[in-house]
Amino acid sequence: MENNCGNSRIAGCSFSVHPMADDFVDYIKASLREVDSSKVWMKTDDVTTTVRGRMEHVFDVTEAILLHIAKTGVHVAFQGTFSIGCPGDSSGDVHMDESEERLNKPQSKNIEQRVAAKFSLYPMGGGDYMDTIYRQIQAMKEKGVEVTPAHYSTRLDGDTSDIFTGLEDVFRETEASGSSHTVMTVTVSANSPSHKDDRS
Amino acid sequence: MENNCGNSRIAGCSFSVHPMADDFVDYIKASLREVDSSKVWMKTDDVTTTVRGRMEHVFDVTEAILLHIAKTGVHVAFQGTFSIGCPGDSSGDVHMDESEERLNKPQSKNIEQRVAAKFSLYPMGGGDYMDTIYRQIQAMKEKGVEVTPAHYSTRLDGDTSDIFTGLEDVFRETEASGSSHTVMTVTVSANSPSHKDDRS
Repeated sequence: MENNCGNSRIAGCSFSVHPMADDFVDYIKASLREVDSSKVWMKTDDVTTTVRGRMEHVFDVTEAILLHIAKTGVHVAFQGTFSIGCPGDSSGDVHMDESEERLNKPQSKNIEQRVAAKFSLYPMGGGDYMDTIYRQIQAMKEKGVEVTPAHYSTRLDGDTSDIFTGLEDVFRETEASGSSHTVMTVTVSANSPSHKDDRS
Repeated sequence: MENNCGNSRIAGCSFSVHPMADDFVDYIKASLREVDSSKVWMKTDDVTTTVRGRMEHVFDVTEAILLHIAKTGVHVAFQGTFSIGCPGDSSGDVHMDESEERLNKPQSKNIEQRVAAKFSLYPMGGGDYMDTIYRQIQAMKEKGVEVTPAHYSTRLDGDTSDIFTGLEDVFRETEASGSSHTVMTVTVSANSPSHKDDRS
């Protein structure tokens, strides 16, 4: 919970994914079989799953886990807290040596899946981040993501790949702007009964 | 996303609750029928529900919504971001005039329900909060809540009522310690297949 904690640049995400179905376990297991998580440290307990490693692989793996469930058409919610700059431990440090090539993106980018997402950015360690946020939100709009203000967050509607790319860009540039500890919360809903055409 | 934003002391929570069942909509609707939300402003969309009002009613309503689903025995996950000090809007301000009497606690406290929870506290606006956290965590332990460190968070295992009381105390005292904008994320899992005896 410290706001300034040294130079470690390992990124992480504590997340949970909730298929709203009686056989939720099967959806999760099937997704995990399709996702290559060999470039991240990953640990699951009964409340959340934590992945840690290079930033690009943390986003690559979380996006892929969500997509492989969503592509089945089941209503699924994802909630993740991305964090960098304040690990508090060293689990997964060895994965910082991995190459930057993403293992799941080649497959993920072929899955068209509209989602509704909300994100909030908490730069705990200073930095000039407001311009960063506005610039990245503009970039998302140019990719066709719909951006609207929401309570305590910003809402994004669009293709999963565009949204995850945008979120990673916001997160990366906030850190680059000088925030020593950055936290970003993301909530995603796919195939909600309220959405009629998430699957294209 | 500003860190210092005046004197408004309306609290809020943006949350989602996920019964992992084919008939998830029925569980949510049944819970909402049992919860008295007349002392808060509440708005639901396809991604999250937002409640705003006096802090005690925000915790009272979110706890009750979770409990009335969990008591059925279905596996349910709750994820909420509690926020105070940076509303950014005025929805629900009228509810600040409500009395402090909690409308749902009398019923909630009779529902025994073990849960596993993880929380993270982000005091965005200063304040001397570390002592507060340690003191409140100690108080939770004295109530029988099991407290363990987790990645990016603190894990709590125990009765829902004790855990929500503890979370509200941590949140309230962090604000009182001088943090002008406080955010707390909470993830809860009830009746997980990994827990054999959540229902007592």
